[in-house]
Amino acid sequence: MTDQTLPAAPARRGRPGYDRQGLLHVAVETFIDRGYDATSIATLAARLGLSKSAIYHHFSSKEQILAAALDEALDALEAALPPTAPGGSSRRLEHVLREAVHVLVARLPYVTLLLRVRGNTDTERAALTRRRAFDRRVTALIEAAQQSGELRTDIDPRVAERLIFGMINSIVEWYRPDGRESADTLADDVVGLALTGLRAG
Amino acid sequence: MTDQTLPAAPARRGRPGYDRQGLLHVAVETFIDRGYDATSIATLAARLGLSKSAIYHHFSSKEQILAAALDEALDALEAALPPTAPGGSSRRLEHVLREAVHVLVARLPYVTLLLRVRGNTDTERAALTRRRAFDRRVTALIEAAQQSGELRTDIDPRVAERLIFGMINSIVEWYRPDGRESADTLADDVVGLALTGLRAG
Repeated sequence: MTDQTLPAAPARRGRPGYDRQGLLHVAVETFIDRGYDATSIATLAARLGLSKSAIYHHFSSKEQILAAALDEALDALEAALPPTAPGGSSRRLEHVLREAVHVLVARLPYVTLLLRVRGNTDTERAALTRRRAFDRRVTALIEAAQQSGELRTDIDPRVAERLIFGMINSIVEWYRPDGRESADTLADDVVGLALTGLRAG
Repeated sequence: MTDQTLPAAPARRGRPGYDRQGLLHVAVETFIDRGYDATSIATLAARLGLSKSAIYHHFSSKEQILAAALDEALDALEAALPPTAPGGSSRRLEHVLREAVHVLVARLPYVTLLLRVRGNTDTERAALTRRRAFDRRVTALIEAAQQSGELRTDIDPRVAERLIFGMINSIVEWYRPDGRESADTLADDVVGLALTGLRAG
């Protein structure tokens, strides 16, 4: 993450400032750069050029900022798996994998932060619980697609889910929004690899 | 990582102690638990129940311990990709993927440490350079297998390599040596996913 990716401070009532979303964005970048534990509200205030009270106008605590950031990633991921998606389980799986790549690319710092959560606070544990529930729903989808004969049955659905999301999550390590790979191409690559593999024809 | 995975202190000349490999193993576990920067030779000495000079008998510095640990992972990974492997490029790719899973399982803490390296010291930068050279050799293998018609050509070989090793590397996040999945099964799963995908034949 470089400062280059920070949004320009949006004008608000004629003076420089940040709305809630802009403030959240800078906070997430700072958590990623310095680590959540090493970042204080004072650190954020200095980086934003705001007073601490200007931050408290939007968020009651540092943990509330983290909670809002993790919600941003989790809400988007959960929306990628609607219970009423049309098509068979394999089509629904394809849909959720494709959408998960788009969520990752569109909310790269938020997903990066989510992937660093280790469960040290109530907020982190709640995020991990939601993430595990999402993983279980994807695993159930793989299992259903195996039972209906759409997917191979010689792989444990839990292992398949972990390997495929391991592949998707690893994208945060190298993806650059200004790189050659578009989100659409990357989503095609992930779905192609996960469902049909690299082998020709 | 739990203390359960630490080796019993091997007997040496009739008194309790650690040989170089045993000392290295405990150091790697400690680096993973506490972070490399937060671990001093004094920390290691306390954890090992040794004097600092007993550690200096084997290693000249903390950085030399890190270098030895990273070599352990990198030597094994590089050995997985012999230049003279028999078979076509696709067979060689299958071989290196399978072996990379075995290396990860057999040297879980060493590979975990390698994956956390961010290039903060000369030792870390040298390890990253070796790792990138390995990745380039795998990418070249994918490219060769695409040119010979063995693999699909509608995916950038660099992206394919990153996605597949993202999948392999993610195994360190959840693999437990005492779990249900054997290294052989896991290697089959990874090779199957990467080459032929989840979809039923």
